Amino acid sequence: MLILISNDDGIHAPGINSLRASLEPLGDVFVVAPDRPRSATGLGITIHKPLRVEDVTFADSKARGYAVNGTPSDCVKIAIQALLPVKPDIVVSGINLGPNLGTDVLYSGTVSAALEGVINDVPAIAVSLASWDAPDFGYAADFTVRLVRVVLDKGLPEETLLNVNIPAFDRSKNPPRINVTRLGKRRYENIFEKRLDPRGKTYYWMGGEVLDVQADLGTDIDSVKKGEISITPLLFDVTDHQFIDLIKGWNLNNIL
Amino acid sequence: MLILISNDDGIHAPGINSLRASLEPLGDVFVVAPDRPRSATGLGITIHKPLRVEDVTFADSKARGYAVNGTPSDCVKIAIQALLPVKPDIVVSGINLGPNLGTDVLYSGTVSAALEGVINDVPAIAVSLASWDAPDFGYAADFTVRLVRVVLDKGLPEETLLNVNIPAFDRSKNPPRINVTRLGKRRYENIFEKRLDPRGKTYYWMGGEVLDVQADLGTDIDSVKKGEISITPLLFDVTDHQFIDLIKGWNLNNIL
Repeated sequence: MLILISNDDGIHAPGINSLRASLEPLGDVFVVAPDRPRSATGLGITIHKPLRVEDVTFADSKARGYAVNGTPSDCVKIAIQALLPVKPDIVVSGINLGPNLGTDVLYSGTVSAALEGVINDVPAIAVSLASWDAPDFGYAADFTVRLVRVVLDKGLPEETLLNVNIPAFDRSKNPPRINVTRLGKRRYENIFEKRLDPRGKTYYWMGGEVLDVQADLGTDIDSVKKGEISITPLLFDVTDHQFIDLIKGWNLNNIL
Repeated sequence: MLILISNDDGIHAPGINSLRASLEPLGDVFVVAPDRPRSATGLGITIHKPLRVEDVTFADSKARGYAVNGTPSDCVKIAIQALLPVKPDIVVSGINLGPNLGTDVLYSGTVSAALEGVINDVPAIAVSLASWDAPDFGYAADFTVRLVRVVLDKGLPEETLLNVNIPAFDRSKNPPRINVTRLGKRRYENIFEKRLDPRGKTYYWMGGEVLDVQADLGTDIDSVKKGEISITPLLFDVTDHQFIDLIKGWNLNNIL
């Protein structure tokens, strides 16, 4: 059993460290991850400059580590195509600090690392801790190991990955519960903050407050708000099949 | 009528210049594009450093130009949220030098600029010239203007964008023909080329030969190979709805 771990918070982030430690009993673990935080990179890849790969060792661990000066997608690609001795049995990405819900998954480096797995025909899971302060990755990592066992047993459809968000619940109040969800929709308001630098020139910071525009029952956003573990199967077949016939009716050959 | 143009080859690329010149008769044109080539960025956005915006003027043109030190997605986001006087009527991204077909659309900066449009509730079209050598953007730009007129007239479903690939056909031999297609699938072989730098340290270049693993009748890949203009409607609703019920049958609450 060969397990490939990646993330977008960087190879030295606490979340990936917990994940590695928990997954090691399952098989040979390789950690191939960005050498620094690379969140919100989407499925960006590095084609205009070369990639460097540095060995990383972990205390009290036989896991092999490689830090790459690229995106999460670069890491999974170079791992599968150049670094690992054989194709991995599964890619596990995370554990991300902060949720990856709704529209955010399109921007997420954590999800992109998993997507790069399925693009390379390897089943994949992306895991995020839906909490920012006092993060406890322990429960999330233990849960992920149990989920990985199920996925390896049951299999996933070709090209489907699982996006998992685990809330920071208080186990004495809310016993954990799993909900299989669909993606909600998020937008951001007041995104750009305009500032002047010391030389009077303008610059902009991207930020913004989240606006959950579709967060009804059955969505990942609603589920995490209720303190449930959300598991959303994702399939990046982005053809709008329904619309193909409609657009054929436009008789576009008239505009040639 | 306000038209927002972006791309991933950079604001000074020939393809975006042809597109701007052709679209100007339709209304007020704003060009907000990366200050340098930023291809294969996916839907990456810049959140860890500030964005700079520089005014750009075009010879013999009233179009407003802004060069941004960010990704295509950053450009469309900052245009709609901070730079334009009102929300644009349409986002047109391109004209990319080289095709954006099949799986490549997930990595494409050209497609991501259009996707950022629909995420901001603006209809969008991504346009690529499926040719690398001796590119003639003239026909592609003229065709895009006619397509933009149709899209503004007919409208697009919310969140659907059009991905257009225009081959470099020889009009005397192959009169242009349009095919409304679905995405094919591409993989890359021999992706990483390992080299030694002058100090004996390893680095890797990402490259690889394309492998069309799904390019049958009705796909964008097949269509462009035949010299047709391919129009693929894309919808980034990536929930795998079919798989939700199946995974519910796994009784995952047993592993809590």
